[in-house]
Amino acid sequence: MISVLAGGVGAARFLKGLVLAVDPSDVTAIVNTGDDTILHGLNISPDIDTVTYTVAGAIDPERGWGLADESWTAMANLARYVAVRPRGSTAAPDWFNLGDRDLATHFYRTARLAEGATLSDVTAEIARAWNLPISVLPMTDDRVGTMVNIIEDGRESTVTFQEYFVKRRHSVPVTGVRFHGIESARPTFLAHLANSDGIIIAPSNPIVSIGPIRALPGVNEALEIARDRVVAISPIIAGAAIKGPADRMLLELGFEPTVVGVARLYAPICGTIVIDQQDAHRRDEVESQGVRCVVADTIMRSPEITKALAETTMRAIRNGD
Amino acid sequence: MISVLAGGVGAARFLKGLVLAVDPSDVTAIVNTGDDTILHGLNISPDIDTVTYTVAGAIDPERGWGLADESWTAMANLARYVAVRPRGSTAAPDWFNLGDRDLATHFYRTARLAEGATLSDVTAEIARAWNLPISVLPMTDDRVGTMVNIIEDGRESTVTFQEYFVKRRHSVPVTGVRFHGIESARPTFLAHLANSDGIIIAPSNPIVSIGPIRALPGVNEALEIARDRVVAISPIIAGAAIKGPADRMLLELGFEPTVVGVARLYAPICGTIVIDQQDAHRRDEVESQGVRCVVADTIMRSPEITKALAETTMRAIRNGD
Repeated sequence: MISVLAGGVGAARFLKGLVLAVDPSDVTAIVNTGDDTILHGLNISPDIDTVTYTVAGAIDPERGWGLADESWTAMANLARYVAVRPRGSTAAPDWFNLGDRDLATHFYRTARLAEGATLSDVTAEIARAWNLPISVLPMTDDRVGTMVNIIEDGRESTVTFQEYFVKRRHSVPVTGVRFHGIESARPTFLAHLANSDGIIIAPSNPIVSIGPIRALPGVNEALEIARDRVVAISPIIAGAAIKGPADRMLLELGFEPTVVGVARLYAPICGTIVIDQQDAHRRDEVESQGVRCVVADTIMRSPEITKALAETTMRAIRNGD
Repeated sequence: MISVLAGGVGAARFLKGLVLAVDPSDVTAIVNTGDDTILHGLNISPDIDTVTYTVAGAIDPERGWGLADESWTAMANLARYVAVRPRGSTAAPDWFNLGDRDLATHFYRTARLAEGATLSDVTAEIARAWNLPISVLPMTDDRVGTMVNIIEDGRESTVTFQEYFVKRRHSVPVTGVRFHGIESARPTFLAHLANSDGIIIAPSNPIVSIGPIRALPGVNEALEIARDRVVAISPIIAGAAIKGPADRMLLELGFEPTVVGVARLYAPICGTIVIDQQDAHRRDEVESQGVRCVVADTIMRSPEITKALAETTMRAIRNGD
């Protein structure tokens, strides 16, 4: 059994390669839900949907999120209501795009949760609806909200992750991140960690994607115990994130936005780190953090490259034993 | 000031004519909310939307409900989830069509109600978004649910109005109707009734559209007091409803599905009834119920005919004084 700790786009792309390299029925994606939000009364789980749609082959390949062949009719019709919304109201949030096809997923999730189903149940049902060959598990069935302290117009404030990431296009400095509700949230996957032959930390944002998963009660400790079976793929390549604000966020929060900084963050819970060829010259620095280091092509430009990366990762797991 | 007690399609069409006959800013539509429902977590108010969209000129003229130039992408994508829905779950209700354009209205309503706005507030905002020249008022800000006792496969059961009307296409016998929550619901419009120069009971289903409005605490009594200023347009023409199950429902619940039956139902609260030319021969029978009777062309086939009906209705109000 292989467990993959996953955020959104990067993790989803890696999983798409992993299912080419191992028996998909052995794979469980354990997905961040700190980005989950409620918009228009609908329960939105962005990372779960990105993983599901990507592994299903239904994702829009250009955007990296949402469904291919999407239309935006419902969104377009919000403008009329934005114009009459009273001061102080946040109804008709037109900054978070939800495609018409995609809406069916949020409708189903919202209705099932209202019926009393757990997010784990609903996520498994949605995975089945898309004929997914892997298991997808939300990191918790409890509500955790990633909150981001930002500086805007010289003033510090706290916003939800989506208000930072989507509404402000992650273009403001971050001074802190916390996970609301994390102390009382129960992880769904402690048994998975204990029973997995390998645990992969996908190339996701270490702070806001892997961070909430690690912060759940008992998880960091379970990863420490499993450390020799844990392999992380660095989301930072040559000092930059392929997508998203991971590099800037690391820097702003006092971490080094390099493979060495990633190694330092993951060393307590991870025996091996896979870094990109472009960072091969930093291999010794990475290993000096106390982790094994494997060099590979980690830019997932094609199914073949992604499959090769997954195979390298699986070899690293076996070598860790 | 003119108050119009309104259900859905018939009332909406009448209002579209009324605004041609009087100053629209004098008109308040008081709309049934017993049909309101929650689907996919969204607050749906079918009669309010039909009135709003129709008066705005945005209604689909063929269907009589929903927006013109509509697409159905979100609905079409529910099928995938219907297929995996566990036994007993009613998530992904694909029997109630919600168009993609229309969804924006439900999104806005749901988000505003979640913010603590009243349905009256939200309805007024939505009316403003559509530049409506009239006021639209839900009959109450409290939740009232019209429940219908039906016989199906020889067995009696109770379903919500939409489960009867839409899901079963009102094709099953009705043995009773009740309005859940009506005793504690507060009408929004008692002051309107007291201050109106005229009160019009639109050509709507007397049982399930006008019925809930009358059943709100204090309303029937207020209408009795205002009786001389109340004019009803019969929704029954030559023993049949133009649209919907009003005729069958009247019969099944022990009322006569004719203008005489309508007169009997409305006589306690209504001084004048407008009946169709096809029923002119029953004028004396109608008047024997203790109401004045006016004969007009009540089939609203064109704006001109509808405007003339509204003018006739307004004259009847003035003659009532």
